[in-house]
Amino acid sequence: MAHEMTLYTYFRSSAAWRARIALNLKGLKPDYCFIHLLKDDQHSADYQHVNPQQLIPALVDDKHIIAQSLAIIEYLDETYPNPPLLPKDAAGRARVRQIAYAIACDIHPINNLRVLHYLRDEFQVTDEQRTQWQRHWIAKGFDAIEKLLAQSDKPGRYCHGNTPTLADICLIPQMGNARRVHVELTAFPTLLRIEETALAHPAFAAARPEVQPDAQ
Amino acid sequence: MAHEMTLYTYFRSSAAWRARIALNLKGLKPDYCFIHLLKDDQHSADYQHVNPQQLIPALVDDKHIIAQSLAIIEYLDETYPNPPLLPKDAAGRARVRQIAYAIACDIHPINNLRVLHYLRDEFQVTDEQRTQWQRHWIAKGFDAIEKLLAQSDKPGRYCHGNTPTLADICLIPQMGNARRVHVELTAFPTLLRIEETALAHPAFAAARPEVQPDAQ
Repeated sequence: MAHEMTLYTYFRSSAAWRARIALNLKGLKPDYCFIHLLKDDQHSADYQHVNPQQLIPALVDDKHIIAQSLAIIEYLDETYPNPPLLPKDAAGRARVRQIAYAIACDIHPINNLRVLHYLRDEFQVTDEQRTQWQRHWIAKGFDAIEKLLAQSDKPGRYCHGNTPTLADICLIPQMGNARRVHVELTAFPTLLRIEETALAHPAFAAARPEVQPDAQ
Repeated sequence: MAHEMTLYTYFRSSAAWRARIALNLKGLKPDYCFIHLLKDDQHSADYQHVNPQQLIPALVDDKHIIAQSLAIIEYLDETYPNPPLLPKDAAGRARVRQIAYAIACDIHPINNLRVLHYLRDEFQVTDEQRTQWQRHWIAKGFDAIEKLLAQSDKPGRYCHGNTPTLADICLIPQMGNARRVHVELTAFPTLLRIEETALAHPAFAAARPEVQPDAQ
């Protein structure tokens, strides 16, 4: 890179985890700026200037500031096209995006930290109930994705063929979240198989929360 | 269109509303198949075959079945490129997608019907508390988007320039949802201005819930 690139990240954020995988797959090595979500760094005046949504991640590439992990990944794929993170054909791209959004829209935001805090603070939901809530939305989403993948006429080592796409970039961090709240994963053999493949890939391995410099 | 196209839709679903706007903007006239969400049509065996997620909308274009509204819209934009729903430059596309995902990931799914049902059935949340929940996530999201748009160096009649993009396609249905739960909108003058512009556009006007054949 001729110019500066910075990723605002937090080791445990699964949206930041997605961005880290994509950057690793593209061979890009941005500076990391650590935003500690449990210390409320995301609400600082400085970070609000970067992302008014006060969510992680955000990418600064030269003069462009981009928040929302999927907007970052589509931007990276358009700007640094190799290796591609989406198939070439429109139907394939739609299939990959459908899987990605089934996770990024319909699982992850419902289980986000700020939502869990609202459940605790406004509805006095217990820790056990919150964990059930997280498991419920993950299992519901995974059930649909497992069916989509198992029925597919495009079997492969990854969600779509034999190379990683946006779908895998969303799936692997969500599998990590599922393990944290002890979702029973044996019902999702295809997802487990893809996770095993992906975690053997250096780009995915290096993006895991536990190997980040800010992990504690 | 030489081939068959079908949209599975429900008049009040704001995700289906997005797909209807995009189809109208492209001048496409698919058959509509109505899935009544309050009668649980989305859980029928037939519809599960179309979309294992049991969510609306889904598009069948020739032999391709695509669920997830944003996957449908990106597919339409790639397959029927005029008029474009995303800017030509990568930074502009990232900005439009960031706004779209701020709505489609971080507002809409948290307020989705199935989540509201869970709050009622599992946490015994009252109707008033559920409305407060909906207002909270809408206002939080709109606050960030209003800041993003107001600070922008790309002012225009729409979210990004003077023609509709994916961002407006997500914004207008979310404004409709905001009105349904009586969010105080005066704090969002830019969003109100864009809404007024968009609703004067025939493609947006014809996609409104109240003018759909299944509206009741």
